[in-house]
Amino acid sequence: MNEIAPVVIVPVILCGGGGTRLWPRSRRHKPKPFLPLVGETTLFSATVLRCPAEEGFADPMVVTGAAHLGFVVEQLPDAGRTQIIVEPEGRNTAAAIALAALRLPADAIMLVCPSDHHIGNVAAFRAAAREAARLAGDDWLVSLGIAPTAPETGYGYLRQGDAIPGTAGRKVDRFVEKPDLERAKGFLASGGYAWNGGIFAFRAGAFLDELEKHRPQIAAAVRAAVSAGHAEGQCFYPDAAAFAAVPGESVDYAVMENTGRAAMVLADMAWSDIGNWQALHEALDRDGDGNVIAGRAELRDCRNVMVMSDGPRVSVVGAHDLIVVVDGDEVLVCTPEGAQSVGKLSGAVNQ
Amino acid sequence: MNEIAPVVIVPVILCGGGGTRLWPRSRRHKPKPFLPLVGETTLFSATVLRCPAEEGFADPMVVTGAAHLGFVVEQLPDAGRTQIIVEPEGRNTAAAIALAALRLPADAIMLVCPSDHHIGNVAAFRAAAREAARLAGDDWLVSLGIAPTAPETGYGYLRQGDAIPGTAGRKVDRFVEKPDLERAKGFLASGGYAWNGGIFAFRAGAFLDELEKHRPQIAAAVRAAVSAGHAEGQCFYPDAAAFAAVPGESVDYAVMENTGRAAMVLADMAWSDIGNWQALHEALDRDGDGNVIAGRAELRDCRNVMVMSDGPRVSVVGAHDLIVVVDGDEVLVCTPEGAQSVGKLSGAVNQ
Repeated sequence: MNEIAPVVIVPVILCGGGGTRLWPRSRRHKPKPFLPLVGETTLFSATVLRCPAEEGFADPMVVTGAAHLGFVVEQLPDAGRTQIIVEPEGRNTAAAIALAALRLPADAIMLVCPSDHHIGNVAAFRAAAREAARLAGDDWLVSLGIAPTAPETGYGYLRQGDAIPGTAGRKVDRFVEKPDLERAKGFLASGGYAWNGGIFAFRAGAFLDELEKHRPQIAAAVRAAVSAGHAEGQCFYPDAAAFAAVPGESVDYAVMENTGRAAMVLADMAWSDIGNWQALHEALDRDGDGNVIAGRAELRDCRNVMVMSDGPRVSVVGAHDLIVVVDGDEVLVCTPEGAQSVGKLSGAVNQ
Repeated sequence: MNEIAPVVIVPVILCGGGGTRLWPRSRRHKPKPFLPLVGETTLFSATVLRCPAEEGFADPMVVTGAAHLGFVVEQLPDAGRTQIIVEPEGRNTAAAIALAALRLPADAIMLVCPSDHHIGNVAAFRAAAREAARLAGDDWLVSLGIAPTAPETGYGYLRQGDAIPGTAGRKVDRFVEKPDLERAKGFLASGGYAWNGGIFAFRAGAFLDELEKHRPQIAAAVRAAVSAGHAEGQCFYPDAAAFAAVPGESVDYAVMENTGRAAMVLADMAWSDIGNWQALHEALDRDGDGNVIAGRAELRDCRNVMVMSDGPRVSVVGAHDLIVVVDGDEVLVCTPEGAQSVGKLSGAVNQ
C-alpha cells in the first residue's frame, strides 16, 4: 500500500436491534441505537456524526434490518449520501460485514462500527481509527482495544502481542470471549489485556480473503445473496432465500480468532457499550452528589441516583445507588447490581 | 353513674384532611381517610365499621369539612343513620370534639376516633373502648394508650400514673407532646409510658365542663357557632362567622394536659397511625421476603420492598428496603428513612 496517499475510510455502521437490558426505554419496536440515551443525539446518529467528511471519512454504509429502516433514514444526518444494506434477517456480524465488504471496492478501508455504543472522546476515537485504517491498508485485521477499568464479564478481551514496528498497533495474541469473573480479574491484574470494543478496520478484500479461508460457507452464502440481490435507490436488498442459508456467527468467532493477521490499536476514548442502565449512568455527567436527572424529577437526600422519565414526575427521597426509569406505562426501579438482570423481567422478555 | 345499665357509646369520628406524607396517593382533593390503604376498605369506612350496633355502639356522629362531605356520605356504610357536623373550616380537635359534645345529650359517652388510623386487632379495640367508656361514665377523660414499640418522635406520650381501683384504667400523670429522639428513648427504657393514640372516651357533659374550665374562650365560641347554626337533613352546619372566631387548639393541649381527670386504658390492638409510607408498609401483610405488592408489579431479588401502583406496571430489581408508589402522573420512590420527608416534596407541598 502507498503510505503517502491519505487513506479514505468508509464507516460501516452495523445497526441491529437488541438492548433488552435497557428496557423499558429500549423496546423491540424502537431499540437502543435509535434512542437519545446520551444527550440529544441518538446513539446511531452519534455514530454517523463521529465520522464526518471533513475529517477524511467517506460517506457511510449502514447495514440494518427492514424493521429499522425507517429509523435509519430518519436519523441519518445526510441520508441521501448513504448506502444502506437491508438484511432480510439478522445473521450476526460476520455476515453483516461480509455484505458490506462485497458492496465496496476491494481496496476500500472499512471501519466497522456498532451503532449502540457511546464514545466520550471523539478526537481519540478518530486518531485510533486512522491508525487502525493505516494498519488495515497493510492487510492487518484491526480491532480497537479499550484499556479495561474493571473485571467486566460481558466483554471479549484481546491479549496484546508484539508491537508492529512503525505503527501504534500491536499484534493480537488471542481473542478471549466473555470470561468468568476470576479470569477477568486475572486479565486486569496481568495488564496485558484490552477489551474488544467491537470496532474494526479491514481492507474489504483482506476481510473477504480471511472469511473465505476460515469460513468458506459464510463467504459463499453471502456472495450468493449479494449476486441475487437488487438495489432500490440507496438501498441494497440481498436475496432473502440465499441469505437465509448464511450461518450466523460473530466476526470474532468466524474471523478474528482464526486469522494470523489480527492486530489492535489501543483507544483511550471514554468508550461504553451502554450495556445496561448502570453503564449508562456511568457514561453520563453527574452532579456533585452523583445524581443524573432526565425528565421531570425531584431528588431529596439522594446519592448516585439516576432518574429518567418520559412524562410523569418522579420524586425520590433518601435513596442511594438507584436507577428509576419511567417510559410509557412501565416503571423500572433497579440497583446497580440489579441492572444486569433487567433483560430477564417479564416486561423485557414478553414485548 | 349506674354501673349496671350497659353504656351506650357514640362513636364521634373526626374526619379532616391531611396526610401529605402519604402523597402522591393521598392528595388534597382525596386525602388519606378516604383511601383503601389497608385492604379494600378505606380508613374512614373501617373506622365506622369498627363500632357496629350489634357490639353496642350507637349510630356514629361524623365531624368533617365541606370539602370532604361527598366522600363521607359515599363511604358511610349506613349514611342515613349518621349525624354529620360540617365544619366551615378546620379549627383543630378541641373545637371539633366540642361541636359533637354540644350536639349530644350531656350523658352520652363519646368515643372520639380519628378516621385515618389502622387498627389490626378490632376485638382488642372494642374491649378497650368499652373499658374507657365505663371510666368516662365516672367522668374520667380517657385516652387509649398504645404500648410503644419504638422511640417514635411523631407521637405524643402518656406517663402512666396510679391504677384506678376496680377498673383496667390508670390515671395519666402527664401528657408529653412529640419528644425528641433522646427523650423518646428514655420513655421507652423507663417502661412507664404509652403512646397517645388520639382515641378518647368522654362523657359529653364532662368534656364540656373541662373545656369551659381550661379554655373558656373555645367553649364559648363553639357554643355560639352551634347556637347560630342550622340543620339540613342529617347535616348540621355551625355558623361560619362564629366558628371562625374559635381558637384552634388540639384536645391534648386544650384539655387533656390540664384536666385533673385524665385517665388511660392500655390497648394492645395493633394500632398504626399510618403516618407515612413506611408505617403503612409495616401495617400490611408481607410475603416471605418482606415484600408487599398492590397493583401490577414484578419484583426480582428484592427484600422489604413495597410497590403500589394505580396503573403502570412497576418492575423492581435488586432493591432492599424501598417503597415505590405510582399514582396518576406521579411516581414516588423512597427509603424507610426518606418516608418521613415525603411531605416536603414539591409535589406534596404544591398541590
